[in-house]
Amino acid sequence: MEKPQKLLVLINSLGMYDWSLAAKFFLNTQVFAGAVGNGGSERHQNFLNQTRNMEVGSNICNNQMSHGSNTKAIRTVAHFDASTKEFILNSPDFEAAKFWVGNMGKTATHAVVYAQLYTSDGQCHGLHSFVVQIRDPKTLLPMPGVMVGDIGKKLGQNGIDNGFAMFYNVRIPQENLLNSTGDISPSGKYTSRYKDPKQRLGASLGTLSSGRVSIIGMTVVNLKLVVSIAIRFSATRRQFGPTEKEEIPVLEYQLQQWRLIPYLAAAYALDYFSKSFFMNLIELQIGILMKDRSPRQAELGKEIHALSCAGKPLASWTAQHGAQECREACGGHGFLAINRLGDIRNDNDPNCTYEGDNNVLLQQTSNYLLGLFHSIREDNIPCESPLGSTHFLNDFKTILSHKFTARTARECLDCTVPLAAYKWLVCYLLRESNQKLQQERQKATNDFDARNNSQVYYCRSLALAFIEHTILQRYYDYTHDTSTPASLQPVLRKLCTLYGLWSLSKHMAVLYQGGYFTGELPGKIIQDAVLELCAELKDDAVSLVDAIAPPDFILNSPIAKADGELYKNLWSAVLQGEKVLERPSWWAEFCTKKPLIAKL
Amino acid sequence: MEKPQKLLVLINSLGMYDWSLAAKFFLNTQVFAGAVGNGGSERHQNFLNQTRNMEVGSNICNNQMSHGSNTKAIRTVAHFDASTKEFILNSPDFEAAKFWVGNMGKTATHAVVYAQLYTSDGQCHGLHSFVVQIRDPKTLLPMPGVMVGDIGKKLGQNGIDNGFAMFYNVRIPQENLLNSTGDISPSGKYTSRYKDPKQRLGASLGTLSSGRVSIIGMTVVNLKLVVSIAIRFSATRRQFGPTEKEEIPVLEYQLQQWRLIPYLAAAYALDYFSKSFFMNLIELQIGILMKDRSPRQAELGKEIHALSCAGKPLASWTAQHGAQECREACGGHGFLAINRLGDIRNDNDPNCTYEGDNNVLLQQTSNYLLGLFHSIREDNIPCESPLGSTHFLNDFKTILSHKFTARTARECLDCTVPLAAYKWLVCYLLRESNQKLQQERQKATNDFDARNNSQVYYCRSLALAFIEHTILQRYYDYTHDTSTPASLQPVLRKLCTLYGLWSLSKHMAVLYQGGYFTGELPGKIIQDAVLELCAELKDDAVSLVDAIAPPDFILNSPIAKADGELYKNLWSAVLQGEKVLERPSWWAEFCTKKPLIAKL
Repeated sequence: MEKPQKLLVLINSLGMYDWSLAAKFFLNTQVFAGAVGNGGSERHQNFLNQTRNMEVGSNICNNQMSHGSNTKAIRTVAHFDASTKEFILNSPDFEAAKFWVGNMGKTATHAVVYAQLYTSDGQCHGLHSFVVQIRDPKTLLPMPGVMVGDIGKKLGQNGIDNGFAMFYNVRIPQENLLNSTGDISPSGKYTSRYKDPKQRLGASLGTLSSGRVSIIGMTVVNLKLVVSIAIRFSATRRQFGPTEKEEIPVLEYQLQQWRLIPYLAAAYALDYFSKSFFMNLIELQIGILMKDRSPRQAELGKEIHALSCAGKPLASWTAQHGAQECREACGGHGFLAINRLGDIRNDNDPNCTYEGDNNVLLQQTSNYLLGLFHSIREDNIPCESPLGSTHFLNDFKTILSHKFTARTARECLDCTVPLAAYKWLVCYLLRESNQKLQQERQKATNDFDARNNSQVYYCRSLALAFIEHTILQRYYDYTHDTSTPASLQPVLRKLCTLYGLWSLSKHMAVLYQGGYFTGELPGKIIQDAVLELCAELKDDAVSLVDAIAPPDFILNSPIAKADGELYKNLWSAVLQGEKVLERPSWWAEFCTKKPLIAKL
Repeated sequence: MEKPQKLLVLINSLGMYDWSLAAKFFLNTQVFAGAVGNGGSERHQNFLNQTRNMEVGSNICNNQMSHGSNTKAIRTVAHFDASTKEFILNSPDFEAAKFWVGNMGKTATHAVVYAQLYTSDGQCHGLHSFVVQIRDPKTLLPMPGVMVGDIGKKLGQNGIDNGFAMFYNVRIPQENLLNSTGDISPSGKYTSRYKDPKQRLGASLGTLSSGRVSIIGMTVVNLKLVVSIAIRFSATRRQFGPTEKEEIPVLEYQLQQWRLIPYLAAAYALDYFSKSFFMNLIELQIGILMKDRSPRQAELGKEIHALSCAGKPLASWTAQHGAQECREACGGHGFLAINRLGDIRNDNDPNCTYEGDNNVLLQQTSNYLLGLFHSIREDNIPCESPLGSTHFLNDFKTILSHKFTARTARECLDCTVPLAAYKWLVCYLLRESNQKLQQERQKATNDFDARNNSQVYYCRSLALAFIEHTILQRYYDYTHDTSTPASLQPVLRKLCTLYGLWSLSKHMAVLYQGGYFTGELPGKIIQDAVLELCAELKDDAVSLVDAIAPPDFILNSPIAKADGELYKNLWSAVLQGEKVLERPSWWAEFCTKKPLIAKL
């Protein structure tokens, strides 16, 4: 509790070596323990102790086969049997099977299961969580009535056993109900702290929200790994040159710089965001522990929700695109599994999906911003979010009257240029999204359709621009803070500006469309500034990578060892492969005893 | 020879089932046979016969460990020994090891090896190709002096054994030199049809150019497979809805339509391009066979080279991005290996790299266009490329004076709108790239640097815009051709326009920057038109997919069977997995006999 960062560092360090290992540990000690700790009470302490001592392996089931994001539609039922003081769990059919559950495939002995709670009188009280024993910890055989198995190979993270589970009249003791939101009294009556079932659902699922913050950290790790590999490779790989005799490192090519160095900048900017945002989450969690019921605490919760719902998509996509670009930038050697770019890309991929599909999550952020905009504009209530990420929206009118004023690429080397552009962009997209939503509301028969038809080009872009602005603003503040070593500030500011301009350039069409940019100049000087910063940073790129790369043993990529001996390391590693020089076991069938067609 | 499409259909059909299978077949029967057939003469006929009868397995080595794209830097040497009438092959060191060679890892018995030819007098005559026996076809053991092995696991296509090879005084008969470009006379003298070594190199490598055209076809197959999976899944997967009771198929969401349907349109447009372009290649190849030395044949070769050098990058990237989007759009189930999106994405990935790295290849196309532009503008020579892809450049002055004139989204539903925009875009980027190159030439000390510094935002974008225009124009012509069934034209035209607008929207910033677009309207109506076309096409999407999807057995994706029984098929497939319900073999170590730390 004193140093909450320690846990983050532990998980990310495990993940740098192998994400499956990190996930197994995290699901056991954090997700399961968190769900039991927050959802339960004193009576569930034994589960926590057993998990901590690794006497049981555990997990949490909130997905079902036919539903991912829509957790409200969970159909597993838990009927209370007053005569035996037990709950009887049932999966109505295989479509309601719990699916994708981490650790469930082979090893979990206990699970937190979400199910609809029914009292003996047949009344449904909505979604609740229960601790259910899945397997016998002494034999790993399933408990009676539990059908549990492994969902099979995945695109990545195959060191973790994702599984499915169905329940056929599985009986669990009454006290296994995690009772922080509702409980069954000795007389068999249902009691709850919440009147509104929606509020109760929010409280039940509340324990899952920190997952997104962790994922941001995980994706940053992946980004650090892939840029380390690709930049070290590019600094040592030589290909072509100005003369026939001399070949130059591929990092000397402007194109290669442009492909890789912005991702290096993104790794630095997102790393700072991830760490500082984690501390914001800790503040929120301390408030929850202290039962802080202040309006500030409530606002903090909302702001963190909004930032995490856009931060996870942005960070996971940046890592995904970065991993792909790095893989391609390393050519054929990047496609060789031993060099690890594939595994990192594949292990990163689920970050785009779990804890909320990226595109679905972004709606949470735009909804938050649209709500604030309404208050500011219609009700004249200035917005005062605790972390300050939305303060500039109060000036939206002034900001929208601004135009791009830089006239040279040199002027754009200052990060205030992309920052100002982002402020305008967020305000513009906010106004446009609001207007689009109003239009769609007039056309549509319900709010559901109106919102759905306001996502593409509007709310979705808004949420992404907003989080990019937040990340950039935070990194700008950090690189201009007196506590940041003065000798490092120049290079960190270049990274900051490059991240800003490069991210901004994806929105260039909108900047023109809305009139912030006019004429040929703005687009050109932003592009020139991006290339200029890449060129300025390329000689520092290897040092910048050395500062964020783990040791060679952990990075585990022969083309990217710190010594730069690209081919020696790769050649050794290839020759250490299994049966590299051996002929295949089936040589005889291939050569002389060829099987005849249809003779199988 | 009568039906050259048959080969394309065979390879793509094999690839639909499994790319490694297709690659093994293709490398043997096409790449090796092509290199021997085109590079050799009568005396090499026996190798072709043995390959055809599958008596030998074969491949072609043109990469080395330290060089991919730069084939000129190959350092393997072949010294002619006049006393024995043999060539002696040597790899100077492991950096010159042949690397990545398909079929080489375990199975090839013969290879076409590129090496620098030295005559007995010590003179080097440049790169030549030789047939070298690698392994004994009866035992699969390496021949004396050949060190050959498997490079290990890759990100995809692991059914093909990529390998490495080094040569230590490996002796081969003189006649194994593939002698179409140069030969050794009985007296030991080198003779060549070409005077200029560069010309000779071009001829040596000429046999590889058809590879890019094949790759375009392969990526189209991948795109068809992934959109088939994702659209069938999205039509059957339900999630949320306007009311608590009713859930709607995710394909009903505008966002999901916008993510997937443009890739469906791309699959159709690229498929047509791939097939028609293949026929252009056949025309070229017939010309080569007929020894056609006409200027038209030369121009055709150049145009096909330019189109394939941009077509391969565009098509492989479209398939890569499409596969990733489809994987994400299928959520968790898209991440399950059994559903095949991962394998397709991973098997597609090398298409971005082999036969020339995408980014490097694009320079060939922009160089071609810049050359034409120079002729048109400076020398007043109108361009008359045989396939007509560049004819509009003759009107570049008029085209550059055009502006975007559509005023409503409805007007943009006509494909002439994106076509006109593309013509302007290509002309603009051509003029800008030319100007940029001139500027860089004034700054740089050599042409090498000037070209390198004109790629990002200029030549690279030019090559991509040019190929997108070509693909769009061809599909437009096809969908407006009287031979295309009239009943299909309406839906195909929608696909055509959607592909055009969607591709164009990636260039929107440049359209504004160069003044083709002005004000808010153009951007907005293009966006509205894209969404409108997605909505109009969504009810036809499943039928459009059914028309391009292979049978279920080949598609091999439980979430995408033609019957639409999403969960039944997935559940069955999962339960058929190996040891799904079994406890792991290591259960005892996990439960009771836990290993002690440091007791290994």
